[in-house]
Amino acid sequence: MDIKQVCVKAGEASIRMAELDGAAKNTALSAIADALLENKNKLVAANNEDMKRSREEKLAEPLLKRLKFDEKKIEDVVEGIRSLMSLEEPVGRTLLSTMLDDGLELYKVTCPIGVIGIIFESRPDALVQISTLCLKSGNSVLLKGGREARETNRALTEIIEGASIAAGLPEGWITLLESRDDVNEMLKMDEYIDLVIPRGSNEFVRYIMENSKIPVMGHADGICHVYVDKDADLTMAEKITVDSKTQYVAVCNATETLLVHEAVAGKFLPALKEEFDRRQVEIHGDEGTRKIIAVKAAHETDWSTEYLDYTISIKLVRDADEAIEHINTYGSGHTDSIVTSNKLTAVRFMNLVDSGNVFWNASTRFSDGFKYGFGAEVGISTSKLHARGPVGLDGLLSYKYMLIGNGHIVDDYANNRKSFKHLGLKKQIGDL
Amino acid sequence: MDIKQVCVKAGEASIRMAELDGAAKNTALSAIADALLENKNKLVAANNEDMKRSREEKLAEPLLKRLKFDEKKIEDVVEGIRSLMSLEEPVGRTLLSTMLDDGLELYKVTCPIGVIGIIFESRPDALVQISTLCLKSGNSVLLKGGREARETNRALTEIIEGASIAAGLPEGWITLLESRDDVNEMLKMDEYIDLVIPRGSNEFVRYIMENSKIPVMGHADGICHVYVDKDADLTMAEKITVDSKTQYVAVCNATETLLVHEAVAGKFLPALKEEFDRRQVEIHGDEGTRKIIAVKAAHETDWSTEYLDYTISIKLVRDADEAIEHINTYGSGHTDSIVTSNKLTAVRFMNLVDSGNVFWNASTRFSDGFKYGFGAEVGISTSKLHARGPVGLDGLLSYKYMLIGNGHIVDDYANNRKSFKHLGLKKQIGDL
Repeated sequence: MDIKQVCVKAGEASIRMAELDGAAKNTALSAIADALLENKNKLVAANNEDMKRSREEKLAEPLLKRLKFDEKKIEDVVEGIRSLMSLEEPVGRTLLSTMLDDGLELYKVTCPIGVIGIIFESRPDALVQISTLCLKSGNSVLLKGGREARETNRALTEIIEGASIAAGLPEGWITLLESRDDVNEMLKMDEYIDLVIPRGSNEFVRYIMENSKIPVMGHADGICHVYVDKDADLTMAEKITVDSKTQYVAVCNATETLLVHEAVAGKFLPALKEEFDRRQVEIHGDEGTRKIIAVKAAHETDWSTEYLDYTISIKLVRDADEAIEHINTYGSGHTDSIVTSNKLTAVRFMNLVDSGNVFWNASTRFSDGFKYGFGAEVGISTSKLHARGPVGLDGLLSYKYMLIGNGHIVDDYANNRKSFKHLGLKKQIGDL
Repeated sequence: MDIKQVCVKAGEASIRMAELDGAAKNTALSAIADALLENKNKLVAANNEDMKRSREEKLAEPLLKRLKFDEKKIEDVVEGIRSLMSLEEPVGRTLLSTMLDDGLELYKVTCPIGVIGIIFESRPDALVQISTLCLKSGNSVLLKGGREARETNRALTEIIEGASIAAGLPEGWITLLESRDDVNEMLKMDEYIDLVIPRGSNEFVRYIMENSKIPVMGHADGICHVYVDKDADLTMAEKITVDSKTQYVAVCNATETLLVHEAVAGKFLPALKEEFDRRQVEIHGDEGTRKIIAVKAAHETDWSTEYLDYTISIKLVRDADEAIEHINTYGSGHTDSIVTSNKLTAVRFMNLVDSGNVFWNASTRFSDGFKYGFGAEVGISTSKLHARGPVGLDGLLSYKYMLIGNGHIVDDYANNRKSFKHLGLKKQIGDL
């Protein structure tokens, strides 16, 4: 596969994608949904092949579970496509309109980014989700899935590509890359690919970030914290801590470190330990913690470890400022929550913790595009540029400035024959 | 200078900067403006030293002109600071508010990015402009100016640093780097620096882009186009073409290539050539052009050359689509304008030309933050992520999600004891 050729075609297709209106894109999405349902048996058969081979190769049980793509999963992704269709057309929205002068109007209008590279591990549903998000936002997409899902990904791409092109989408808007060499080639194509979105393990995401000049949207680590302040309602604090740690341990917004104000630790920790013991959560505590409850010792490495498991580290702090500093030092800028009834402390925490999601009296597990009501999720970004936090369709968009005049030239303004008025308009570019 | 230490201090300061309110930042800006005026003589003396040394070193005349920092320039930058003070406080603005469920409210709130690195060539006014923009947006800043402006930059930084810290800003928020080694060290600090903004020549910007993993905001080339369509008013087309090329040739939004629909070229080009001859603009034409007017031959390299001079390349095209394709192939995604009275053609051009600024019947010279009414300009970006086109204060901001609950946990939603409501609010985070 000549990756540069693939990129050039994807770029050409992206120009055509940019001019599709909402109806054309929804027609293609609908055709994809129908085709996925019609080809259920083919998809399940392809997935069975992957499952069989992966079992023989002794793939770990959690990965086998993610690889599984059965009728239920097909129905889920189809439902996802239908809900994507119901979202407002993201391209061509006017974000700002200004009358610069009589007859000279400026519009800031959303547009697709261009060519997106997606690299994901085992889950085949990610392929459908991400490629349809790219379609809805008018972007071309290069996909690379895990080797273990080879047959499923191939069948899915064939169906999506076939149905969408038959429905009028340009050839080349979607391409599946199959070899690891292809990925390494793709990571070099910074001239052609505008954005890479890696979905997978920390090591995997970090590898992508370190081996490409293409901007990366996503997150490597999710080292999230709960801080229990001296003014916390301790019953609430326990509820939030337990939910943040145990509601689903294998995800990025699960809490890994608990910070407790030393003034309440004596009362808070023993009850919390009972609850964690019941749920078989292993605790690694700092010295102060171990004076109150009998737990393993936490080491410096604990503060920057994403356990993704029934393990939590606990540290006592003198005050909210020490908690904030700990989080800004060891955290990953993902999600951090304070439990307190003191508004001033809460606002200070939310302003000074340098993370995409800063919570007050709520579980860290809430940071998620669907829970936020975005309707679709591209991923969660810990970058501070472009998109931060849970990213919806917006993260797949750029904007351009459209200026509409009537023969206007700058010389008239440079020589004071005319002057700018800069009046805000409430016009949409569609009103032209 | 230990750059890593400087970066760590800047990072710590950036957390303190994030909690400053608008009044505190304006007080610091006002103190800086006063201090610059009070130290006029010192600044002019420092600049005289730079001018003298640079003349001895035979610095080119245009660069000497940029280096000059006299009383008039000091008054200009002070006026810039006063106008920056009058802009709305950029940090803490609520971009979105949603009630996820009773008592669980989500706010998307603007915040500073963190630590910004600025690298600029000769003009000392850029130092003042950019550092005060960083202050207003609550960011720490590392500055590196040109060697030729060493004394001026040193004096300016001392004044800005002294006045702002006396006014309450945290130490370490601003640092001037002086050696080229420092810059190369700085470009490696992707762990500490969130964004680099290079202001200078193409080669310079390209060097930065290719030698750092830190995201770069800016543009290397400005290869801008005017396309004269078959449905153009040719008088208007000539006016726009002449302004786009000659109003100020040394800037990025000056036009470098003119595309002309072959149906109107015979009528349009002879008159245009007369006007260009009068203004001593050298024309490099393709074969079609040279059948109509006697000009030098354009070569393939002309289409991707930023002359920044009284030179223009001209190419005939069959239709608007060929113009769009030419622009998307050879342009730099900066600013491109169509002259036509056909609305459909204009809209197609603006949708399909993949540039930050796409104009209809207006000179390319309009793409500029001040002309757009942004009140301040960080630079012009040709990236499609984060900020595109002329960038105002917004480009120095990120956002974070603040979620405010009352003991809310995800388990209640996972087990259907509660369900999300997702109602849009019109609340500001300040209303808490």
